[in-house]
Amino acid sequence: MVRVGIINVMGYAGADLARLLYTHPEARLTSVSGRSGAGKPLAEVFPHLACYNLMVEPEIGDVDFVFSALPHAASAEAVAPLVRAGLPVVDISADFRLRDPQEYAAWYGGEHPAPDLLPQAVYGLTELNREGVRTSRLIANPGCYPESALLALAPAVKAGIIGPEIIVDSKSGISGAGRTLGLTYHFAEANESVSAYGLDGHRHLPEMVQELARMWPPAEAPQPFGSAQDRPLSPRVTFTPHLIPMTRGILSTCYAPLLPGRLPMGEAAKEQVRELYREFYRGEPFVRVVDSPPSTKQTQGSNLCLVYPTVDVRTQRLVVVSVLDNLVKGAAGQAIQNMNVMLGLPETMGLEAPAVYP
Amino acid sequence: MVRVGIINVMGYAGADLARLLYTHPEARLTSVSGRSGAGKPLAEVFPHLACYNLMVEPEIGDVDFVFSALPHAASAEAVAPLVRAGLPVVDISADFRLRDPQEYAAWYGGEHPAPDLLPQAVYGLTELNREGVRTSRLIANPGCYPESALLALAPAVKAGIIGPEIIVDSKSGISGAGRTLGLTYHFAEANESVSAYGLDGHRHLPEMVQELARMWPPAEAPQPFGSAQDRPLSPRVTFTPHLIPMTRGILSTCYAPLLPGRLPMGEAAKEQVRELYREFYRGEPFVRVVDSPPSTKQTQGSNLCLVYPTVDVRTQRLVVVSVLDNLVKGAAGQAIQNMNVMLGLPETMGLEAPAVYP
Amino acid sequence: MVRVGIINVMGYAGADLARLLYTHPEARLTSVSGRSGAGKPLAEVFPHLACYNLMVEPEIGDVDFVFSALPHAASAEAVAPLVRAGLPVVDISADFRLRDPQEYAAWYGGEHPAPDLLPQAVYGLTELNREGVRTSRLIANPGCYPESALLALAPAVKAGIIGPEIIVDSKSGISGAGRTLGLTYHFAEANESVSAYGLDGHRHLPEMVQELARMWPPAEAPQPFGSAQDRPLSPRVTFTPHLIPMTRGILSTCYAPLLPGRLPMGEAAKEQVRELYREFYRGEPFVRVVDSPPSTKQTQGSNLCLVYPTVDVRTQRLVVVSVLDNLVKGAAGQAIQNMNVMLGLPETMGLEAPAVYP
Amino acid sequence: MVRVGIINVMGYAGADLARLLYTHPEARLTSVSGRSGAGKPLAEVFPHLACYNLMVEPEIGDVDFVFSALPHAASAEAVAPLVRAGLPVVDISADFRLRDPQEYAAWYGGEHPAPDLLPQAVYGLTELNREGVRTSRLIANPGCYPESALLALAPAVKAGIIGPEIIVDSKSGISGAGRTLGLTYHFAEANESVSAYGLDGHRHLPEMVQELARMWPPAEAPQPFGSAQDRPLSPRVTFTPHLIPMTRGILSTCYAPLLPGRLPMGEAAKEQVRELYREFYRGEPFVRVVDSPPSTKQTQGSNLCLVYPTVDVRTQRLVVVSVLDNLVKGAAGQAIQNMNVMLGLPETMGLEAPAVYP
Repeated sequence: MVRVGIINVMGYAGADLARLLYTHPEARLTSVSGRSGAGKPLAEVFPHLACYNLMVEPEIGDVDFVFSALPHAASAEAVAPLVRAGLPVVDISADFRLRDPQEYAAWYGGEHPAPDLLPQAVYGLTELNREGVRTSRLIANPGCYPESALLALAPAVKAGIIGPEIIVDSKSGISGAGRTLGLTYHFAEANESVSAYGLDGHRHLPEMVQELARMWPPAEAPQPFGSAQDRPLSPRVTFTPHLIPMTRGILSTCYAPLLPGRLPMGEAAKEQVRELYREFYRGEPFVRVVDSPPSTKQTQGSNLCLVYPTVDVRTQRLVVVSVLDNLVKGAAGQAIQNMNVMLGLPETMGLEAPAVYP
Repeated sequence: MVRVGIINVMGYAGADLARLLYTHPEARLTSVSGRSGAGKPLAEVFPHLACYNLMVEPEIGDVDFVFSALPHAASAEAVAPLVRAGLPVVDISADFRLRDPQEYAAWYGGEHPAPDLLPQAVYGLTELNREGVRTSRLIANPGCYPESALLALAPAVKAGIIGPEIIVDSKSGISGAGRTLGLTYHFAEANESVSAYGLDGHRHLPEMVQELARMWPPAEAPQPFGSAQDRPLSPRVTFTPHLIPMTRGILSTCYAPLLPGRLPMGEAAKEQVRELYREFYRGEPFVRVVDSPPSTKQTQGSNLCLVYPTVDVRTQRLVVVSVLDNLVKGAAGQAIQNMNVMLGLPETMGLEAPAVYP
Repeated sequence: MVRVGIINVMGYAGADLARLLYTHPEARLTSVSGRSGAGKPLAEVFPHLACYNLMVEPEIGDVDFVFSALPHAASAEAVAPLVRAGLPVVDISADFRLRDPQEYAAWYGGEHPAPDLLPQAVYGLTELNREGVRTSRLIANPGCYPESALLALAPAVKAGIIGPEIIVDSKSGISGAGRTLGLTYHFAEANESVSAYGLDGHRHLPEMVQELARMWPPAEAPQPFGSAQDRPLSPRVTFTPHLIPMTRGILSTCYAPLLPGRLPMGEAAKEQVRELYREFYRGEPFVRVVDSPPSTKQTQGSNLCLVYPTVDVRTQRLVVVSVLDNLVKGAAGQAIQNMNVMLGLPETMGLEAPAVYP
Repeated sequence: MVRVGIINVMGYAGADLARLLYTHPEARLTSVSGRSGAGKPLAEVFPHLACYNLMVEPEIGDVDFVFSALPHAASAEAVAPLVRAGLPVVDISADFRLRDPQEYAAWYGGEHPAPDLLPQAVYGLTELNREGVRTSRLIANPGCYPESALLALAPAVKAGIIGPEIIVDSKSGISGAGRTLGLTYHFAEANESVSAYGLDGHRHLPEMVQELARMWPPAEAPQPFGSAQDRPLSPRVTFTPHLIPMTRGILSTCYAPLLPGRLPMGEAAKEQVRELYREFYRGEPFVRVVDSPPSTKQTQGSNLCLVYPTVDVRTQRLVVVSVLDNLVKGAAGQAIQNMNVMLGLPETMGLEAPAVYP
């Protein structure tokens, strides 16, 4: 039985880690920390976690595996000594997602606290990087928006069927903003309302661009759907997140131009692109390619991501809709999936529960 | 491994049974039926159940244990032959809850389809009737409203501290109305709105009264809190259900006059009544007596019932607030809890997952 | 054209006053104040009020009529000099609702700032006190919960048909808690959840009791439905407010025992009590007695209160359900109704708009 | 006083017409029709319209002005004889929006019932076509999605600053689907969920394309921002509508590539495009260009459309967010605005009420 600790259990990601770990057969949550809650029973901070008989401590105790759910900067500072001491760590913050510390400084407004660890950090989108996750001790758990966009776009990008002019329009439930107070998240303001935000540049944008660029096929390489001398090398992404009046869930609608000649014209393109996606995710336990547009409720509380790819045949655009639970596949569930892979456990262990529907 | 069947998986109670059974270590769902869905994959009726590779059949196949989630009348008709053949059955419909077939006819508008089975049916509120559940093959699973009211009132009734003038004011999420279409349940009508219904008599009322009357201590018996010659013998309950704009959850606020002399006057009564409740539910895995008013979200998706008893010291009334998830502790979870007891399995098996919060 | 000022436009009651005044034919909002917003355009604090070209000032300017939407204590301090200078004032705070300054101190935790003004203050529930409102310069606008309970109970109380053992179970949207931040009101916590609060005594309770006691018919007086020597003199009220996941609206379910002999037994009582209510509110523009249980959405944004009285014939209890928009009939609309009466304008002026449905 | 009739008052658009007309100073609703409600009081169909003392009739009576809120096809059939008889008509259905009857047949699945009337029909997006509205007797009221997209894109299109590769990603409240029952609109299914629909082609797409094409500046004409020999002539639009869990409101996020050389590079482009929009809508009472991303709640119940244009400077894309109430500016309010213009009344008459916020 692996003894697990959560650094900063005070937010929704930390709490959902605790929720999911409770029924994990091979991991036991033995220590949780949190500055504002230190000294309180976990059951007082989160009554639904009263099943645990744990106190929130100022620092986590002796454990075999660590999740950090601290905010950025604080997280790297907290986990750096643990990583250096050889503890396996999944960091849910953004600190180890961007490989370039200058990019980090530009978007997060401060020097990176542990740039020496960046080379060994692995971007933990398991489906796209399983081998990297298996062999690393420091996992950067993906952001919830990039998770939804990358799973939606990866098959098309890797198949070389789309051009780089990409738009990601995401709709998120309000738990994505965390448990922090703010007028925007006051029920009376957020309910019965939708708004866009982050239009001047959301911090999840560079993460999306970095990972899309990494998977972008080189122009000179042979392509599955024919020659690609015209393939540009870098995606140009516009990303607009929206807050919608629900608690959990993200739906991302992704748009990209189809490169000419890669897919058949007309309705046949739809089935072909769906087949391409099905093939790409064949055997994946947590990504399901679906035949009709999915709803976020179908993933509520579960580690599933549903992906619906289609083609706008009038304009020759790929349109992909993906849905997931931002706190599970977009955070805590993805983190446990990474833990399972790191520890050599079955990847689905503790994550099998179907969505809570309705 | 017990092979389990669900008769009528088409509604929310049936679907939540399937959801919960998926991770049950000793039961396997092997057959589901449903008239309107017969011939379709379960994954088409409920995409979140795509983890099952089951077809909806017109009738369930060969199984070891049966849940029926049919509407009343149809349910008794369907399970009667199974019960007679010796199969253990948990009936989620109302058919075997009322012991008196004439009462049944009065409230459900038709003769009882299997009155001969009523004597062997056991009202399956496990916490109040564990021994009965263990020894029966036909369990009447409680209604969601009675479940919340009875768990809230039982300790006070059995302790003989309240008089019979009881008011139960319940607030339910809209999944309680089922998956049937109706203008009342249209999102645009139900959202941002609350309304009372069933004011001329809701079918869950006789069920509450019957069970409260059964547990009501006889006037002549010695009482824990002193003599009770003035104890009336039958509760007089007003029950008002309300629809509120949420999907899952019931909160019941229960009011009853304190009998004079049973509790101390003033603030001390609050702590004493809480202690009485704590004692009553000590060791119960699914009922938790809490120290501050609970919210339904703390039970979302879980089999918990949280109970908060207090005293209005100005008017000498007991006020008890209880919360639960109407589809779990109020239906499917309670049913599986009963199955576990009937089969001699650990009572919490498959039901340990904490609430999905937030 | 009456020049109107709002002291503290920063909360929801102040904002809804401004909203409603915008289309009032005889009043013009010319000055608004607010500490935290002073110096900002009103359009910045509340974008939906950009139709006004007003700045939020530290103090209101020269006006003919004043609404105060300050919190208690601060409100009495602010309006006292204005009242003494002869300005007509409607105070939306609780400061002038309780006639007894000691009661005020007990519930609001401090000495009353202007006890000398209490004798001239009039409780502004217009339907029950129209003449008082017409002749006063200082109106205590009712609390939202008492408004809903008093309109539900007044006809029965004044007719002498109920006993004093009253329960008021209220369900409120979250705007009732104001625009202040708090974890309870965070969307992710409040959504998909219901909870009770104020179980140790909500500040609206003494207000209800005071006004019910005032209208309670003396035992010796002749009663509409027969002799009433057994009438007690003071109501004993238990009041439980609940927060439900919607923005606007209050539904109160009120319970009281019918006095024996005042109404016919059986189903006929229902029609008779409805007729009594219809008669009581005949000609009232803002209170409508309805024939089926109403929903809060039917009053959204409007100054209506819908009242549904019925009888639980099994237990001989009166049950009355009332609904209103807590920010309109429960605050700003009621305040403008009072202003109209004070100024001799048609009572419905500026308040005619139907509810925004759905 | 103009006597107004509503053909088919049974849906949400019809009901909101009735709501808004109630306080219109120069129009009086004197007749309403509706097949399923014929013979019932309007107050029974919509309790919030009990202020009217009207019966729903099988056909509207003698009136001076007609709104039709019938479904497509039925609407053209019903209004054709009225138009031919000289009555001014605003048709809220889609029947007179597409100028080409073959396009109509392709999208609406049947021959146009009155193609002879198409030439005199005017597309009633008042802000973009005021003179046409003033001089016509048959107005095709815009669809709610096109309304939001066209108001968002018109200034940029007419200024010639964007290319034709347009994406419109819209999020709508569920009242947009009407009052018809359907599992998708059941509260328990729609709440806490978001989904895309219409991905194979929504009927509002050809309407958007038609109107964008009409306003598209010819390539040879001189352009405000420099020469435009490279301007293509026809917009290529991908439109994806989404259902989100709220009742009223549409937010559309519109994306288009900036043509090179028309705007300054870098941050300055944002202010310049905002100034261009401000200038375009200067003096418009119902369209407001705002300086920060708006929320739909800021328009709830009102006839406002808020438009927020900005530039993604990394990718040189125009991004415009617009919000409106789908039942008001997207249907009933827009229709009354058109009526006002047709009748020579002040355009804002009866439409001045601010949004109901929160």
